[in-house]
Amino acid sequence: MKVVALRCITCGSSYSPEELDYTCPRCGPRRGTLEVLYDYSKIRRGFTRESLKKRSQNYTIWRYLPILPVEEEGQRYIQPLRVGWTPLYRFEQLARKYGVRELYLKDDGVNPTASYKDRASALVVIKAQEKNKKIITCASTGNAASSLAGFAANTALTTIIFVPKSAPAAKLAQLLIYGAKVLAVEGSYDQAYDLCLEAAERYGWYNRSAAINPYLVEGKKTGALEIAEQLDWEVPDLVLVPVGDGSVISGIYKGFHDLLELGFIAGIPKIIGVQAEGASPIKRAFERYDGNEVIIEDQEAKTLADSIAVGKPRDIVKAVKYVSAAKGSFISVSDQEILRAIGELARRTGIFAEPAAAAAYAGFRALAEQGRLSKSDRVVIMITGSGLKDIAAAREAAEVKEPYTIGASLDEVERALKGLGLAP
Amino acid sequence: MKVVALRCITCGSSYSPEELDYTCPRCGPRRGTLEVLYDYSKIRRGFTRESLKKRSQNYTIWRYLPILPVEEEGQRYIQPLRVGWTPLYRFEQLARKYGVRELYLKDDGVNPTASYKDRASALVVIKAQEKNKKIITCASTGNAASSLAGFAANTALTTIIFVPKSAPAAKLAQLLIYGAKVLAVEGSYDQAYDLCLEAAERYGWYNRSAAINPYLVEGKKTGALEIAEQLDWEVPDLVLVPVGDGSVISGIYKGFHDLLELGFIAGIPKIIGVQAEGASPIKRAFERYDGNEVIIEDQEAKTLADSIAVGKPRDIVKAVKYVSAAKGSFISVSDQEILRAIGELARRTGIFAEPAAAAAYAGFRALAEQGRLSKSDRVVIMITGSGLKDIAAAREAAEVKEPYTIGASLDEVERALKGLGLAP
Repeated sequence: MKVVALRCITCGSSYSPEELDYTCPRCGPRRGTLEVLYDYSKIRRGFTRESLKKRSQNYTIWRYLPILPVEEEGQRYIQPLRVGWTPLYRFEQLARKYGVRELYLKDDGVNPTASYKDRASALVVIKAQEKNKKIITCASTGNAASSLAGFAANTALTTIIFVPKSAPAAKLAQLLIYGAKVLAVEGSYDQAYDLCLEAAERYGWYNRSAAINPYLVEGKKTGALEIAEQLDWEVPDLVLVPVGDGSVISGIYKGFHDLLELGFIAGIPKIIGVQAEGASPIKRAFERYDGNEVIIEDQEAKTLADSIAVGKPRDIVKAVKYVSAAKGSFISVSDQEILRAIGELARRTGIFAEPAAAAAYAGFRALAEQGRLSKSDRVVIMITGSGLKDIAAAREAAEVKEPYTIGASLDEVERALKGLGLAP
Repeated sequence: MKVVALRCITCGSSYSPEELDYTCPRCGPRRGTLEVLYDYSKIRRGFTRESLKKRSQNYTIWRYLPILPVEEEGQRYIQPLRVGWTPLYRFEQLARKYGVRELYLKDDGVNPTASYKDRASALVVIKAQEKNKKIITCASTGNAASSLAGFAANTALTTIIFVPKSAPAAKLAQLLIYGAKVLAVEGSYDQAYDLCLEAAERYGWYNRSAAINPYLVEGKKTGALEIAEQLDWEVPDLVLVPVGDGSVISGIYKGFHDLLELGFIAGIPKIIGVQAEGASPIKRAFERYDGNEVIIEDQEAKTLADSIAVGKPRDIVKAVKYVSAAKGSFISVSDQEILRAIGELARRTGIFAEPAAAAAYAGFRALAEQGRLSKSDRVVIMITGSGLKDIAAAREAAEVKEPYTIGASLDEVERALKGLGLAP
C-alpha cells in the first residue's frame, strides 16, 4: 500500500484507507477533510527526477503514478483519455507589460472534458471501481460533474449528478450526452451539494463531491507536479489559482508539498487564491486566520463565474491552512474585472478561458496594479477551464458583441469595413 | 528553400513559391489548387525516424518542421500555443463490437481552439507574417475562422472573417472574444467563401480560405504524420475523415505521401472520406472519376453538421485525385446517423465530438453494417472538432434531452430516481 494513512486536517487523527472513505467522524464533513499520506522515504527509492525523465512516452498525470493513490490492481481501470500534462505557456510580452520576470499560463482547458477537474475525476472513477461501487455521484457547479460523466462514460458505473438549475448550457449538454442521470436542483450549488451528500449516504453511492472525498485533492495536485517538472524543478515565485470550494488550491499546495518531501524541489511557491468578490468566504477566513481554528462564515454566492460561485466552501479548512503554510494570500476580483480578463487573455494569448479561469488572470492584473509584484517574480497562472464552457459570458466580455451582418455583395463588404473603421 | 515548387493539381504546371500565393492562373481558383513540393532527397539527409525520436521535448506539429513550409526566418513567428500531437486513443471494446482488429480515435478537439483547423491556422499565420501582410482573412463555416482568430490574436495581424449567418453560437463567441472583425453573411458558406475571395483580391488581404491557399494542406497533413509516428510507423489499413471542402482529407493523404517519399513508411493507408448525405458533391465526383478530369457538380448543402455543410467544395480536385491514389473511397451518412454517432461516441469513449467530427464515426459504423470491414483491419477515425462547438446538436443527440428538475429535498430525489428507473 502506497497510502499509509488518511489524516484529519483539523484534529490530526489518522485513519487507515480501508477504514474510512470520506471525512473524520470526530470533526464532521466540513472540518474533518482528510489528507492522504504516503511513505515518502519508500517512494523516493524508486521515483526520482531521473526516473521521470525516462517516461517520455507517458505525458499524462499517470507519469506520477508512484505518488498517486492508485494501487496495483486499480491500474487496469485507468482510462485511455489523455488527462493532464497540459501546456505551460510562457508569454514574454505580457510579462513585460506587467513588470514581472517570467509569466506562464497553464492551460487546463485542453483536458478531455475541457477543465482542470478531469485530473480528479480520472482518479476517483478508479477508486469507485476499486471499491466495487455501482453508482457514483457528484454535486457540482458544472465542471466536476461533466468531467465525472466523461470519465465514467466508458465504465460500468452509473453516474448521478446534482447541479444547480442555473448551470451553463454547455456543461449540461456534456452531462446529457455522456449519459449521466442529471438532477437539476432548484437552488444554489451549496444546496445541491448538501442534497447530494445526504442522498449518497442514504443510498450508499460513491461520492465525488468536492472536499469530502480525500482522493480528489490527490488528482488535483498533479497540476503542481507538472508545473515543477515543466520548469525543470525550479519552482516559480507565485502561483495564482481560482478558488471556489478550495479544493484545486489545496491540490496545488499538496503537489508542491509532496515534491518537497521527495526532494524534487527546494521550496514551495507562494500560492495566491483568487476569489470572486461576491463569493469570497475563504479569503475572509484566511484573513482572520491566526494559526488556530479556521473561522468559517458562509455567504450567499453572487458572481457570474459559475465554477467558483460557492458560498459554503467545503475545502475551506485545507485551503486556509495550506495557503498559510505556503506563505500565500487571497485576493478577490469583481465580475467586471473577470470579464475584462476573459477578453484580454483571448486577445493577447489566444487562450479562451471560462470566467472562473479568467479570474486568476484578473487577480494577477490586480496584484500588478496594486504594486504587489516584484520585477524578479516568476509567475504561473492556472487557467482551469475552457471558454467554450460558458459562451454567454464570453459574449458579455467581448469588446464587439455582435458580428456585422451583411448581404452577399462587395458593396456590403465595403460598407461594413467603413463601419468597422477599416475603410480600405 | 525547402519548398522547391508549387504544382497545379490539374495541369501540372510548376511555379516558384515567390511567384504565386494561391492558385494556377491557367486553371483558376477551383481547379488550379497547388501542391507544395519539397526536395525530399535533401530533407531525408537530416530528418529521419531516429532524429524525430530525439525531439521528445517538442510534442506539437513543429516536431515536423523539416517538412513544413516555414523557412528559417519564419520560425520566430511560431506561436506558443500547443497545436497538434493530439491523442490517438485505442478502444478495444469498440473494436470487438465492430469486428476489426484495432480501432483508434484521433481526438483533435483538444487543440487550442478545439478543432483540427488549428493545424493549418498555426502555419498560415506564419506565412502571412513572412509575406508582411497586415490583414488576414478567411471564409469559414466556423472552425477555420475561430482557429485563425485564435492564432492571429497574439500577433500584429488584423483578422477579417466571413461566416454564414447560421454559424453556431460557440464559434461566433470565439471569433468575437479573440477580437476578429466578423462579417456574418446572409447566405450560405459557399456564398461567404466567394465574397471573401473577391474582397481579398480587391484589398490585397492574405487569404486563409480553404483550398486556394496551398499551405493549408501542409498544416493539415500533420495529422497523418502523427498517426504514423504514434503507430510506430506501421500505418493503419483505413483512415476515416469527415469531408466538407476536401482540404483535411487532402492533407491526410499528403502527410502519408510525404512520409512515403521520405522512406518513413512502407505504404499509404486506404483513406475513406465521409460526407453528409445532404452535402456530398465530392463523393459523387469521386464515383464518376475515371482518372481523367474531375467532373464537378455543386449542390445546395443541407446538413446539421455545419463544418461539412459545403455544397461547392473548393478542394474537390485534390480530394478526388488523392483518395483515388490512396485506393480509398467515399461514403455518406444521414444527419440521423450523425446524431446517433455523437451519442455513442460520448457514452462509449468519453469523447464529445461536434457533428462533423462524429460523421467520421458514423461512416465507420455504416461500413461495419454494410460488411465492408475486415477482421484484420486496423482503423483510425479522425475526430476533427469538440462537441462544445455545437451544444444544440448535442442536446438533439442525447438520449435524455433534459435534466430532471427537482426541489432541494430527499423526497424529491427519491421521486426523481423512480422517474429515472433507478428506484433504490
